[in-house]
Amino acid sequence: MDLKEKIRVIEDFPKEGISFKDITTLVKDKEALQYTINALCDLIDGEVDLIVGPESRGFIFGTAVAYRIGAGFVPVRKPGKLPAETISYTYDLEYGTDTIEIHKDAIKKGDKVVIIDDLIATGGTLEASAKAIEMLGGEIVSIISLMELTGLNGRDKLKDYDVKTLVQYEF
Amino acid sequence: MDLKEKIRVIEDFPKEGISFKDITTLVKDKEALQYTINALCDLIDGEVDLIVGPESRGFIFGTAVAYRIGAGFVPVRKPGKLPAETISYTYDLEYGTDTIEIHKDAIKKGDKVVIIDDLIATGGTLEASAKAIEMLGGEIVSIISLMELTGLNGRDKLKDYDVKTLVQYEF
Repeated sequence: MDLKEKIRVIEDFPKEGISFKDITTLVKDKEALQYTINALCDLIDGEVDLIVGPESRGFIFGTAVAYRIGAGFVPVRKPGKLPAETISYTYDLEYGTDTIEIHKDAIKKGDKVVIIDDLIATGGTLEASAKAIEMLGGEIVSIISLMELTGLNGRDKLKDYDVKTLVQYEF
Repeated sequence: MDLKEKIRVIEDFPKEGISFKDITTLVKDKEALQYTINALCDLIDGEVDLIVGPESRGFIFGTAVAYRIGAGFVPVRKPGKLPAETISYTYDLEYGTDTIEIHKDAIKKGDKVVIIDDLIATGGTLEASAKAIEMLGGEIVSIISLMELTGLNGRDKLKDYDVKTLVQYEF
């Protein structure tokens, strides 16, 4: 299946110059959803304890993958959303910074973790998620994403990890 | 499986007097995640075209259910998050109002829809989601939630719909 035919590209959203990749057209298509979840699962090698998904499109793909492979699911969220004790990781944006949080008790030492998201852009959120998981003793098996914007060089930031994606766009 | 044993209750989050039901302890437990998704699917009767899930915990349960039953998934989001043409529905809160959006092309006339969420509290978000789906011509088969706070009478607001939940708390 050509997933690019299922993903809608919307120019100048959320701001001018951004070519937004809209996955809602993919996930509402039942065959495309089945195909995508199965294809993401096929990129996973070996035993995995936990799938981690960043808020909020990582929840969409991450939980279905966790269900399919029989792993648990752990959300990475924006500050203030998780109710129990968290660790946070702050990372640089083009202008300013952003922060993610993960529950301290979400990962046990030695847990084998795959991070699933919809998009690798600059890689900032995914790098922060990976570092936070490692601070808690987790082992990153892979970072797997539906889409990748190759022109933003997210793989440079994620060079310590095994990174796999299904669909590539330049920007 | 007693799902209440898997759900963590955190008092006074996000504000004093609220007894927050934390589903992260359930979804990180691989057996509990399997059990919950299967049990939610077992509550669905007949043919369903689409699962609709409200942002953001509805994404966690909704997509896995859609994947399992072979339906498509449609997100309901807070304003400004969806990139294409939307309809919005504004509903009353205790103080003020809140608004949800759904893509206009997400639902076709006659689509059979199940709404999946983690929690029925006052029922405001779920009622708004159901009304928006109906405005687009969709048919609500059921509204299915992992948890329900019976003391907040969400079922009164949702009395026109078939409502099913797996776990009940008073507040």
